[in-house]
Amino acid sequence: MMNQESLAQIKASIKTIPDYPKAGIMFRDVTSLLEDAQAYKATIAILVAQYQSKGFTKVVGTEARGFLFGAPLALELGIGFVPVRKPGKLPRETLSENYELEYGKDTLEIHTDAINADDKVLVIDDLLATGGTIEATVKLIRRLGGHVEDAAFIISLPEIGGEKRLKEMGINVLSLCEYEGE
Amino acid sequence: MMNQESLAQIKASIKTIPDYPKAGIMFRDVTSLLEDAQAYKATIAILVAQYQSKGFTKVVGTEARGFLFGAPLALELGIGFVPVRKPGKLPRETLSENYELEYGKDTLEIHTDAINADDKVLVIDDLLATGGTIEATVKLIRRLGGHVEDAAFIISLPEIGGEKRLKEMGINVLSLCEYEGE
Repeated sequence: MMNQESLAQIKASIKTIPDYPKAGIMFRDVTSLLEDAQAYKATIAILVAQYQSKGFTKVVGTEARGFLFGAPLALELGIGFVPVRKPGKLPRETLSENYELEYGKDTLEIHTDAINADDKVLVIDDLLATGGTIEATVKLIRRLGGHVEDAAFIISLPEIGGEKRLKEMGINVLSLCEYEGE
Repeated sequence: MMNQESLAQIKASIKTIPDYPKAGIMFRDVTSLLEDAQAYKATIAILVAQYQSKGFTKVVGTEARGFLFGAPLALELGIGFVPVRKPGKLPRETLSENYELEYGKDTLEIHTDAINADDKVLVIDDLLATGGTIEATVKLIRRLGGHVEDAAFIISLPEIGGEKRLKEMGINVLSLCEYEGE
């Protein structure tokens, strides 16, 4: 059971920007949460309470906003942080996975030596919409033999379908703030 | 005075990748530090010890690797984190600053309402080479009226000129690990 007062504080810190990046989209702006030291601290505290003492060995966060929550969470859990990045950013040997965007495709990469068969991995990102980037992230971890059954998000837009998509991959989804529609 | 044992542990965790991204470059790979939970924790602890109780009101980190150190540091200092990002990533009103790359130019942006004249700002990034991105970041903060006299880096390559460049702008530079050449 998550602390309802903290959740309300976190949701109140997230600004909504109408018509960004295009008309009709209500953009949920996580940078206003980062600027609010109390709300940011409460966010990490909730995640730590959920995931500590569960045997996780790595936190994986996706470029770039996933770094903002995954890095502090890994530090608090006392385990390593592994970044998943856009192509050409990681210097060691990498594995790549393509995923669909609204128009076209994009690619994510992970270091091949960053995850192994003994790893129990927690995936984190700021926002779950279609779930495309997180599906690619989970595939990368599983291709390296890592075990992943949990993904956490600050914001979720369940109507867009990402939660269903991840559940079908055997992923338990935690989201701190849900919004209807886009 | 920084803890020499911690500094040695941090430097030992940073892998060097020869000839990346091109022949002749010795790439210092901060992702191997992130994967080492003890070294990562020691890194943030050193930064906290240096900057706590100095009256900073915001930490500014530059996309994307600056997020990995700036976000945990802001949380530990109990102050807000402000991201500086590539164009088109920040949803509210922004200010832009161009800077020179080896070939061509690039642009960084900050939310105009994220910094004000009462702010004493600490800038952080993973690596200081030419200092171009940090000079642009400092200019953005100062254009918004914020005070900035301190910048911290995990890695510095003093021969490339960034330290000198930032000192000429009135910035005190702290770096945890120095390397000769590129």
